[in-house]
Amino acid sequence: MSKTLDLPAPPLQVSHWFNTPGPLTLEHLRGRVVALHAFQMLCPGCVAHGLPQATRMHEAFPPDQLAVVGLHSVFEHHEVMQPAAALQAFIHEYRLAFPIGIDQADPQGGAVPLTMRALGLRGTPSLVLLDKRGRIRLHHFGRADDLLVGARVGQLIAEPDDGEAVRCDDDGCRLPEARHV
Amino acid sequence: MSKTLDLPAPPLQVSHWFNTPGPLTLEHLRGRVVALHAFQMLCPGCVAHGLPQATRMHEAFPPDQLAVVGLHSVFEHHEVMQPAAALQAFIHEYRLAFPIGIDQADPQGGAVPLTMRALGLRGTPSLVLLDKRGRIRLHHFGRADDLLVGARVGQLIAEPDDGEAVRCDDDGCRLPEARHV
Amino acid sequence: MSKTLDLPAPPLQVSHWFNTPGPLTLEHLRGRVVALHAFQMLCPGCVAHGLPQATRMHEAFPPDQLAVVGLHSVFEHHEVMQPAAALQAFIHEYRLAFPIGIDQADPQGGAVPLTMRALGLRGTPSLVLLDKRGRIRLHHFGRADDLLVGARVGQLIAEPDDGEAVRCDDDGCRLPEARHV
Amino acid sequence: MSKTLDLPAPPLQVSHWFNTPGPLTLEHLRGRVVALHAFQMLCPGCVAHGLPQATRMHEAFPPDQLAVVGLHSVFEHHEVMQPAAALQAFIHEYRLAFPIGIDQADPQGGAVPLTMRALGLRGTPSLVLLDKRGRIRLHHFGRADDLLVGARVGQLIAEPDDGEAVRCDDDGCRLPEARHV
Repeated sequence: MSKTLDLPAPPLQVSHWFNTPGPLTLEHLRGRVVALHAFQMLCPGCVAHGLPQATRMHEAFPPDQLAVVGLHSVFEHHEVMQPAAALQAFIHEYRLAFPIGIDQADPQGGAVPLTMRALGLRGTPSLVLLDKRGRIRLHHFGRADDLLVGARVGQLIAEPDDGEAVRCDDDGCRLPEARHV
Repeated sequence: MSKTLDLPAPPLQVSHWFNTPGPLTLEHLRGRVVALHAFQMLCPGCVAHGLPQATRMHEAFPPDQLAVVGLHSVFEHHEVMQPAAALQAFIHEYRLAFPIGIDQADPQGGAVPLTMRALGLRGTPSLVLLDKRGRIRLHHFGRADDLLVGARVGQLIAEPDDGEAVRCDDDGCRLPEARHV
Repeated sequence: MSKTLDLPAPPLQVSHWFNTPGPLTLEHLRGRVVALHAFQMLCPGCVAHGLPQATRMHEAFPPDQLAVVGLHSVFEHHEVMQPAAALQAFIHEYRLAFPIGIDQADPQGGAVPLTMRALGLRGTPSLVLLDKRGRIRLHHFGRADDLLVGARVGQLIAEPDDGEAVRCDDDGCRLPEARHV
Repeated sequence: MSKTLDLPAPPLQVSHWFNTPGPLTLEHLRGRVVALHAFQMLCPGCVAHGLPQATRMHEAFPPDQLAVVGLHSVFEHHEVMQPAAALQAFIHEYRLAFPIGIDQADPQGGAVPLTMRALGLRGTPSLVLLDKRGRIRLHHFGRADDLLVGARVGQLIAEPDDGEAVRCDDDGCRLPEARHV
C-alpha cells in the first residue's frame, strides 16, 4: 500500500489533453469519484487489461458518479511514445472515449513524468481511485480485479458527498472533522 | 427490475444444506451483505458464469462483510438433479466452498421450488443481493458484470450496519425510520 | 505417450448411444479420421475444455473427413452419472450434437468402464485420434491445444485414404504394407 | 478466397529486418511451410489475436517444419508507425521472437506497402500460408481459428517435401508435374 493513501491527490500535470473540450483539474472533478488510469501505449499489460478495464468503468458508471481519466505516463521508449500524434492514433484505433492527458515530461530530463512521480506510481498499468473530496483511496499497480475495483468504487460512491462523513454511535452523532474548525 | 426490490427477502426454504455445520437462516446473516446465487447443476450458464462469480465473491470479500449462499433451485430435469447425492458430487468436483442449500421442492408438485418462487426468480443463474437489514437490493437473471456487482456490494457494505441510515442535510440529522417507533 | 500408439484401436464397447440413428462401430468410420472425446458429466475440465473443443472440431471439419465421437466414460460417482437419463439431460442442456456413447460398465464391478480400459486412458477429458485405417495416432489426457490438435487432424486427413501409404524415394515407389499380402 | 491462391508467393520486399541475422527470402525458406503474419503496431485485432497466434504457432511447431514470419505492413498512421525505432520498442515489449520485416513503403507514395500490395492483402491482421514449394495455400483476413489454421499447417507439413506430390490410383502412380520436364 502506498504512503500517499488517504492523502489529497497531487494536481494533474498534463502537457496535452484528448477527448475533453478543455484541460481537466481535480478541482473540477470534486464531488465525483475519480479513477486515474496510468498507461503507456507500448505496455502489453495496459493494452490487455488496464485500458479495457478503464473503458468498462467508463461505460458501467454514470459520469456524475465516476470520472474516468487516462494518464499517458511514459517512462521508457520516450522517443517513440512521447509524440502526441502517436497517442492520438492509438486513442483513435483503440476507440478510447474518456479524457486522456499526456503526463508532463520531467523538465530536468528524468525518465519519470511529473504526475506519475508525484503520485508515487510503481509502473503501468496503475489505477488510482480518489474519493469525492479528492483523497487517494486506492493505489493499484498491475492487473486489478473487477469485483474488488467495483466494490471500492461502489463504496466511494456511497460515501457522503461533501465531506459530511457523519458517524453516529451510541454516544451520538459527531460533526465531520472538517467542521471542527 | 423485480417487484420485490427493497422489500424484505422471504425466508430460505431449504431441504438440505452443504458446506455449513447447521441450517442457515437470513436472520443469522443479518448485519452482513448477502449474495444468493441460484443455480442448477445442468445449467451451462451457471457452470460457466454464475458459480465462478459466486466463488470469486466468496474469495474476494471478508466473510463478516459478505455472505455468499448458493441455492440449488431445480425447475427442470428433476429426476436427474433432485437427488442430494448428485449435488454432493457436483459440489465436490467443482470445489464449491460456500454454503449451498437445496431449494425445497414444491409439495404440490409444481416444477418451481419454494424459495425460487417466493423470490420471483426468472431462471438460473440468478443473483440476489440483500443489504445488512435483509432487504432485496439487486435482482439479476443471467450473466452479471463483475464491476457492477462489485459496485453494488461495495455500496451495501458501506451502508450503516443496523438500520441507522442517518441522513444529514442543512436541516439537520434525521433519526432513521426504524427509530421513530 | 501411450503404449497403444500406432496400434489399431480396440472396438468401442457402448451400452447406449445418443445422437445417432444406430450403434456406431469403428469399422463404419474407416476411411475417415476419428476423434474420440472421453468425458464425464461432472468433470469440470471436460465441461470447460474437452467438450467445447469436441464441438468446435465437429463444426470445423466436414463430416466425411473427421468423425467426432463422444464417450461417457464414468469412473467415479457412478450412482449419479451412470443413468442414461442424466446424460440425456446433460446432452440436451449443453447442445452436444455429435454421436455420444455410454462406455460399457465393467461387468466384474470394476470402476473403469471397458472402452476406457481397453484404450488405456488416464482420465477425463481424453482425446484419442484415429487415422483413416483405425490406428491410434494421438493419445492426449487433459486440456489439448487447438493448434496442435488441428495440425494432427490436418496431417491425418492429408494421408492417403485406403492404406495406400505410398512412399517414394530415390529407390522408387513402394507398395503399402497392406498390399504385400 | 484470393485470386492468388495456389500461385507462387511474390518475393518479400522488406526495408528492415528484426530477429534474424540477415535478410530472409522465400527461397531460403523453401522446403518448410511458411506462415506470413501481416500486422500493424496500432491495430487492436493484431495485438489481441494475430500476433498472439503467430507466437503460439512459433512455439508449437518445430522450426524445420514451419517458419513464422511477421510483416509490419503499415497502411495508415504512417508518420507514427513507420519509424523502425517504434517497431523495435514494440517487438521488445511484446516479446516477439520470430523474424519480422518492415514491409517496403511504396516509393510512389501510395499508402499500401509493396509486399502487402503484391500479396493482395485486404488489411491487418492477415495470415498467408505457403506450402513447401512457396505457393500460397491460405489467405485469411481477420481473426483466424486455431483449429482450422492448425489443420491447414498440418496438412501442408504432411505433403511431400520437394515437389514429389505423387498421386497413386487404380491407373498407377504418376510422376509429379515438376518431373515431366
